[in-house]
Amino acid sequence: MEVGGGVKVGGGEKENVGGVVQQVNGGLTNDGLSAIMPGWFSEINPMWPGEAHSLKVEKVLFQGKSDFQNVVVFQSSTYGKVLVLDGVIQLTERDECAYQEMITHIPLCSIPNPKKVSKEFFPNMAVGYEDPRVTLHVGDGVAFLKNVPEGTYDAIIVDSSDPIGPAKELFEKPFFESVAKALRPGGVVCTQAESIWLHMHIIEDIVSNCRQVFKGSVNYAWTTVPTYPSGVIGFMLCSTEGPPVDFQHPAYNIDEDENSNKSIGPLKFYNSEIHSAAFCLPSFARRIIDS
Amino acid sequence: MEVGGGVKVGGGEKENVGGVVQQVNGGLTNDGLSAIMPGWFSEINPMWPGEAHSLKVEKVLFQGKSDFQNVVVFQSSTYGKVLVLDGVIQLTERDECAYQEMITHIPLCSIPNPKKVSKEFFPNMAVGYEDPRVTLHVGDGVAFLKNVPEGTYDAIIVDSSDPIGPAKELFEKPFFESVAKALRPGGVVCTQAESIWLHMHIIEDIVSNCRQVFKGSVNYAWTTVPTYPSGVIGFMLCSTEGPPVDFQHPAYNIDEDENSNKSIGPLKFYNSEIHSAAFCLPSFARRIIDS
Repeated sequence: MEVGGGVKVGGGEKENVGGVVQQVNGGLTNDGLSAIMPGWFSEINPMWPGEAHSLKVEKVLFQGKSDFQNVVVFQSSTYGKVLVLDGVIQLTERDECAYQEMITHIPLCSIPNPKKVSKEFFPNMAVGYEDPRVTLHVGDGVAFLKNVPEGTYDAIIVDSSDPIGPAKELFEKPFFESVAKALRPGGVVCTQAESIWLHMHIIEDIVSNCRQVFKGSVNYAWTTVPTYPSGVIGFMLCSTEGPPVDFQHPAYNIDEDENSNKSIGPLKFYNSEIHSAAFCLPSFARRIIDS
Repeated sequence: MEVGGGVKVGGGEKENVGGVVQQVNGGLTNDGLSAIMPGWFSEINPMWPGEAHSLKVEKVLFQGKSDFQNVVVFQSSTYGKVLVLDGVIQLTERDECAYQEMITHIPLCSIPNPKKVSKEFFPNMAVGYEDPRVTLHVGDGVAFLKNVPEGTYDAIIVDSSDPIGPAKELFEKPFFESVAKALRPGGVVCTQAESIWLHMHIIEDIVSNCRQVFKGSVNYAWTTVPTYPSGVIGFMLCSTEGPPVDFQHPAYNIDEDENSNKSIGPLKFYNSEIHSAAFCLPSFARRIIDS
C-alpha cells in the first residue's frame, strides 16, 4: 500500500502452531477445580508458552485457507469481529485502534511533512484503501522492496507477524538494509517489534540489527493491545542518515490541528501525548534497549 | 502497613465468581476446533465477560479459605508463583513489579519529602514488612481509617480488589472522604482504579467521586500488567487542598539519586520517565476522564 511517500509492507505468514477454537468438556465443581468452556477461541503458541488468552465465540464467520495462511474470522461476544491467521489473533474490532493508529501515526507524525500522509487515512483499516492517493500492491513485501529505486520513500511501515516462520526475514539485517536503501535521507521506518514482557531477547537482536543499518536514530516504542499476548506490543522507530528525526517529539502535533478530525471523525487512541509516552520504557526494558 | 507518613490500606474480599484451576477434557482435531488444556488456571469473571486469561499450572502450592477469601497459590510454568483470591489473579512473581512499584512510587515520588518513605521499602513485597519504620495493621482498612486523627498522613495507598463485592465501598464517596480527612493538607492518595479497556464507566464514576472529595488535583495514571485482565490497570492519584502536587512531574527524581539503588538493588519497572508517561492517556480514555 502506498500513501504519498509511504509504503506499508505486509508481513509473511506465521508458523501453524495450533491456535484453536476451543470446544472443551468438563464441569464446574464447588471447589472451583474445573470449568466448562465450550465455544471459546484460545490462543496457544510456543512464542508465549505457559499462557493463553481466550475469547468467547458467538459465531464463526469464515474459516478457510489462503495461499499463505489458515484464516478464521469470528464474531466474538465482547471484542467485535476477530481475524485469526494460523491460530494467532491479528486484530479485533475493539482494540485494533491501539495497534493500527500507533504503528502508522508514530512514524508519520515524526517527520516534518504531515501533508503527504493525511489523517483521513487512519480512522479504520478499510477507509485507507479507498483513498485516491493509495496504490495497493499485494505480494511479497521483501521482493517488492528490492525492486524499489533508492531513496524513494519518506516512510515505510512494516506490519509484520511474529519472527517465527516465514516473517522471520522481516526481522533480519538484509531486510532492514533494503528498507534503508528504499528510504530517502532522513526517512523513517516503523516495524512491529514484539513484547517487552515476552521477547526481550528477540528485541535485543532487532535493536542490534537496526543500530548497524540505520545511521539516523534507533528507538523502541510500545502500546497496549489487550488481545495481543502479554497485552503490549512494540515498534522499532528508525531513521536513515540525513535530516535528524526526533521521534519522541512529533514534528506534527495532531492535537493542535483543528482540521484533523473534520473528515473522518476523531482518532480513538493516538494523540501527541501518547506518541511521546510510547517511548518511555520500564526499567527492565530500558537497561537492555538503551545499553 | 505504615511507612513513615504513609499507610497502605488492604482491600476487602471479592465476590466469589468461580475462577478455577481448570481441568478440562477434550481433543485437538486437525481443523483446530478443540484443544486439550489440562492443568491450566483460567480466570473467568463477569467483570470481564467474553474473555479469559489462562496460566499453565506446574503445582498447586496452597489451596484454602481464609476468614475473608478463597486462597490459591500455585507455581506456574512461566510466570513464577501466582496468588489467586476468589478466582482472580492478584499477583505473579514475573509481573508484580509493574503494579507494586507503580502504585507506591507514583504517589510517594510526587511529594517533596522522599526521605519519609525511602526506596528501600520497595524492591519486593516481603522486604517492606521487615523495615523497622513499618507498623503493620491487619484488619478492615475502612474501619481503621475512620479512627485515624485528622491530617495524620502524607500519603495513603489503597491496593484494593475490584469494586464488585466487599471492596465496593473502597470506590465510593464516604471512603474517599475518610481518606481525605486522614491526609494532611496537600497529602496524596493512590487507589487502584481498574482498566481503561474494560471499565470506563466505573472509572468515570470514580473520577466523579474523587473530584467532589479531593480539592487539590485529581488524575488518572496506568501501567501494563500482563496477568491482569486486558493487560493494563490504572490508579487515581489525588491530593487534598494545600500545597499543590504536580503528579505528572515527580518531586523526587529517583533516576538522579545515586544512592537509590545501593541497599536493595535496582527497581525492575519504575523510573521517572515511566512515572510521567503513566499519566498520558489514549484519546478514548482522555475524552471521558478529562471532560
